[in-house]
Amino acid sequence: MSSSKLYGGIEGGGTKFICIVAGGPDEIIEEARFATTTPQQTLRQVCAFFRPFAGQKRLHSIGLGTFGPLDLDPASPTYGYITSTPKPGWGGTNILGILQSALGVRVAMDVDVAASALGEQRWGASQGHDPSLYLTVGTGIGGCYLAGGKPLRGMVGSEMGHVRIPHHRQADPFDGCCPYHGDCFEGLASGPSIQERFGQPAESLADDHPFWELEAGYIAAALANTILTFSPRKIVLGGGVMQRAFLFAKIRRRVGELLNGYLSHPTLTGPMDEYIVPPALGHRSGVLGGVAMAMQLEQSN
Amino acid sequence: MSSSKLYGGIEGGGTKFICIVAGGPDEIIEEARFATTTPQQTLRQVCAFFRPFAGQKRLHSIGLGTFGPLDLDPASPTYGYITSTPKPGWGGTNILGILQSALGVRVAMDVDVAASALGEQRWGASQGHDPSLYLTVGTGIGGCYLAGGKPLRGMVGSEMGHVRIPHHRQADPFDGCCPYHGDCFEGLASGPSIQERFGQPAESLADDHPFWELEAGYIAAALANTILTFSPRKIVLGGGVMQRAFLFAKIRRRVGELLNGYLSHPTLTGPMDEYIVPPALGHRSGVLGGVAMAMQLEQSN
Repeated sequence: MSSSKLYGGIEGGGTKFICIVAGGPDEIIEEARFATTTPQQTLRQVCAFFRPFAGQKRLHSIGLGTFGPLDLDPASPTYGYITSTPKPGWGGTNILGILQSALGVRVAMDVDVAASALGEQRWGASQGHDPSLYLTVGTGIGGCYLAGGKPLRGMVGSEMGHVRIPHHRQADPFDGCCPYHGDCFEGLASGPSIQERFGQPAESLADDHPFWELEAGYIAAALANTILTFSPRKIVLGGGVMQRAFLFAKIRRRVGELLNGYLSHPTLTGPMDEYIVPPALGHRSGVLGGVAMAMQLEQSN
Repeated sequence: MSSSKLYGGIEGGGTKFICIVAGGPDEIIEEARFATTTPQQTLRQVCAFFRPFAGQKRLHSIGLGTFGPLDLDPASPTYGYITSTPKPGWGGTNILGILQSALGVRVAMDVDVAASALGEQRWGASQGHDPSLYLTVGTGIGGCYLAGGKPLRGMVGSEMGHVRIPHHRQADPFDGCCPYHGDCFEGLASGPSIQERFGQPAESLADDHPFWELEAGYIAAALANTILTFSPRKIVLGGGVMQRAFLFAKIRRRVGELLNGYLSHPTLTGPMDEYIVPPALGHRSGVLGGVAMAMQLEQSN
């Protein structure tokens, strides 16, 4: 076992927290998963997992990517809190403060999709490509655009899953399942939208089901809009729905049709096999993104 | 007349080139307009306008915002060229090189909408607000998002006028007028789309024409998508169609309806009167943006 510095990564999800201690993607020392129950119980388990390493002083820092919404404004009195989440019991949790005071190490925090984007850019599919986009299509839809190696942020956090895209009502009369917007992108293309339409999860819908063309079309519309606005140099698509790997070819084809040659860059007029891609870190984009964030924290010292 | 340094600003448009020599918005020394005919003729007039100031050595630098598309990659052999424009005679014009060699001063160049965005952020409606968005709705639709005071750029230039938004086909069966995309944002909401629908220009369509609700809805859809993605702190709407000032109230209301309280920032849940605004520099956003670009060039020395 090497004696190099170690970093912690945490991916906080709605059903589980994944934790690793690592020196990098090729040096994963320990890994564990804990069910997301109450903040007290789950964070106690998370802290117990990291404490031996923190005690040895080998654990330099931790990076946390978690479900939100989060207060990420360092000037705010509730900086580092999970704010108004519908997840019962988690609203108002000072997750950053709890981890830092329990473990005595610095913790970097961002939303889950930002951690995955950073992980993929540091060691994965978007390495060496800036700007890049990471989009997750699963229970929810969220995206993170990295420019200059950092998540691009405006006045509030990015919620690109909730953009409006053309809804093909004739072929797809479903009203959408977003409680705020009905047929926004997430309302039309998230996993739960498929469950609501067909009474079965996205995982079990047949490969040749005609809906997949519509699903690919919705994802492609959102991607084409992003390309027309801030053309990333690499697009990584993760999340549960994207486990259906045949979607990639459909999405690439449809993005090409939507752009229709208007942008003359060879990447955008070609087949896009190397442009719109799955994550290279698999299910570890998020936790390794946490490790990347922890390393950045060190460099910012 | 002050003896402070002077800067040139050029707004290159499809019908005219506007040129100013100025020390800033309150010190405009000279201003002229030249019809956009051939590059030879128009640029000869532009150079003749600036030459007396360049000869006196008082003119430090020039900023040019022009129609495109442009090659803005400094590493490219055709850097500073207008590339594949449909404007007859202008494709392949080395506009940056012609101006710099004729006048012997440095010239900063960007697309027209970027110049307007920079002008408004330096002295106008978005001053002190970063990030900000400038969107022009006129003959074409284009936008520039400024982050850290600079136009955000991806692999290719931004073409946010060509994003797809929901098209209300029942109320508005028009197929859209974009030769590439049909009913993209520009195809549905540009000045020419109004001319094609009703056989009259946007300027003369009655204030109470029901189409204005649809027009405001299209603009609001594009703005709501931008807010959900990278929430600017100020949105400035310019261009010929936005001369119809009653559109602002309709757009603000519709953006609120589309966001539907999902983003809890007070700016986005309130009336947005100070958030979605007209340019403060009027018809000079572009040329003064050129002056701002010229000043930035000096600072980068």
